[in-house]
Amino acid sequence: MAELKNDRLLRALLREPVDVTPVWMMRQAGRYLPEYRDTRAKAGDFLSLCKNRELACEVTLQPLERYDLDAAILFSDILTIPDAMGLGLYFEEGEGPRFKKTIRTEADVAELAVPDATTDLDYVLAAVKEIRSALAGRVPLIGFSGSPWTLATYMVEGGSSRDFRHIKKMMYATPEVMHALLDKLAQAVIGYLNEQIRSGAQAVQIFDTWGGVLSGPLYLEFSLRYMKQIVDGLIREREGRRVPVILFTKNGGQWLEAMVEAGADALGLDWTSDIADARRRIGDRVALQGNLDPSVLYAPATRIRAEVADTLARFGSGSGHVFNLGHGIHQYADPEVVKIFVDAVHELSVPYH
Amino acid sequence: MAELKNDRLLRALLREPVDVTPVWMMRQAGRYLPEYRDTRAKAGDFLSLCKNRELACEVTLQPLERYDLDAAILFSDILTIPDAMGLGLYFEEGEGPRFKKTIRTEADVAELAVPDATTDLDYVLAAVKEIRSALAGRVPLIGFSGSPWTLATYMVEGGSSRDFRHIKKMMYATPEVMHALLDKLAQAVIGYLNEQIRSGAQAVQIFDTWGGVLSGPLYLEFSLRYMKQIVDGLIREREGRRVPVILFTKNGGQWLEAMVEAGADALGLDWTSDIADARRRIGDRVALQGNLDPSVLYAPATRIRAEVADTLARFGSGSGHVFNLGHGIHQYADPEVVKIFVDAVHELSVPYH
Repeated sequence: MAELKNDRLLRALLREPVDVTPVWMMRQAGRYLPEYRDTRAKAGDFLSLCKNRELACEVTLQPLERYDLDAAILFSDILTIPDAMGLGLYFEEGEGPRFKKTIRTEADVAELAVPDATTDLDYVLAAVKEIRSALAGRVPLIGFSGSPWTLATYMVEGGSSRDFRHIKKMMYATPEVMHALLDKLAQAVIGYLNEQIRSGAQAVQIFDTWGGVLSGPLYLEFSLRYMKQIVDGLIREREGRRVPVILFTKNGGQWLEAMVEAGADALGLDWTSDIADARRRIGDRVALQGNLDPSVLYAPATRIRAEVADTLARFGSGSGHVFNLGHGIHQYADPEVVKIFVDAVHELSVPYH
Repeated sequence: MAELKNDRLLRALLREPVDVTPVWMMRQAGRYLPEYRDTRAKAGDFLSLCKNRELACEVTLQPLERYDLDAAILFSDILTIPDAMGLGLYFEEGEGPRFKKTIRTEADVAELAVPDATTDLDYVLAAVKEIRSALAGRVPLIGFSGSPWTLATYMVEGGSSRDFRHIKKMMYATPEVMHALLDKLAQAVIGYLNEQIRSGAQAVQIFDTWGGVLSGPLYLEFSLRYMKQIVDGLIREREGRRVPVILFTKNGGQWLEAMVEAGADALGLDWTSDIADARRRIGDRVALQGNLDPSVLYAPATRIRAEVADTLARFGSGSGHVFNLGHGIHQYADPEVVKIFVDAVHELSVPYH
């Protein structure tokens, strides 16, 4: 493997000194980029794009050509695991993800087999290898997975949801079935992320997009517990370096102290949290990633720079901050404006290091 | 007006002693009740039901016939104000509310007139009078309005939204236009709630359903500020009693200390907050309302009672707690099960008073 030329991300995730604050964006390879839309059109649809290693590699690298980003993130979908479990993932235009089969009963859960990533998700691992090789040490590659709870919401609801009716019913009415499903998913995620690491991922992020719809005690029982199980099962060192783990629960700002206990190296913050407050609460134990509202990119350039400056000032001096948006970049963001954002992070963070 | 026989709600909202913890449910007059669905079918559609004072009164009283609730809440919609401003509210089956006209520019905002509740929203006031009279002092009547920020989200987006793209763009790109819109809405809400109070509402709740999609600083600037303006402008005493104001920001659990400053008598909590923690933080200054996850009603009876017991224990001894769900009751809740919930609150709260 080529030597890593820019290791700011890995250093900041481990709270080691850096020259400037590293920055990447959730969903940085995405629809806001015209070149992404072109590649996707070439692939046919979203899933075909995920399953074609050359094209997945192409879109992963596109934002790095435009912006001075400090990381690449594997282009894939969070729902690859349930798809590999035979649920039949498909996308309806403007409707988000859907599954042909839903999981709602004890029998449904019993029938599910934990996928073997090396065979059932080989297309993802092929993409990881392809990207890692194409990066040639330019920046580190982040691998990722959805959290067990988040994956389960889609599997039980059959797609996106507003009220999470079926899964909450399952959780309250048959908690043991819910736990059986989450345990299988945790095993699947461990295998999947470890294979991503073996294939070249240098850091991994667990996306818990829907943990925030739970009450505190249920978040601990049904989401955080399984993320801890995953963190405990992950390869933490590879190629002579630590492989940092980032845990991101959207709307999890009230539970940061509990999240630290899961053992990840860094926690992602959405934009509703105050990063100064988060650092006071847990910054001596983990790095923090975030947390600008993606909608800030709709503001004029001076306002974007002011918001970046404010977030940097709130975090304050020293390492342990990876700049990011508080959620995935919107598809309507202006690609020209994104450059202002990324450059502002590097330029304005110098005094803090 | 008939003398109020059950004033537990008003007393608890003012942190005065009560015999048991009062309970009501957001959206208690709603689709989960077969008799509601019958009345709605009689009315034709949802808006016709809101606009017919006899039928609005009928559905408001329906849950009180079934359950030992300590309050009635006006049956209406949060979007009556923008409808009165000429935006053309309509509902598409399964799609939620929509507006024929959207508000996105300075000119759009300039054209908006603040409605006069006594003429433009007279149907709501007629329903308030009808309900108050029909209640005959049984329990107090709660009036309500959407918060300016929440109303604005629907007016700018043209309906429900997931990413709040247009309004966030407006907020970041033209904050002065956003403020002009919110100021008009705050004036409208003040007039509207004061007329509800003059017509017989004995407490009022401001629903800030979408304040939680903002960052902390923007929540203060674009949502809380206008709720404070409303609280400052409300009639606070009527018929020789204080008219308590309840403020409810969904996903606002991180900002409770700031919310207290708005001057409301009580804050509503959604189910993601820990009511013990909330009481520690602000319970010496306001009452707390909440906060069981509405999905708990899908659980077996013993679990529902255990969850009620847990919430009561977390709040602890003394007055200042109004039991409620952390959000509106789901349409798929079983009406028989709701009785178990309501009765459990009264039965299990005795030792705390």
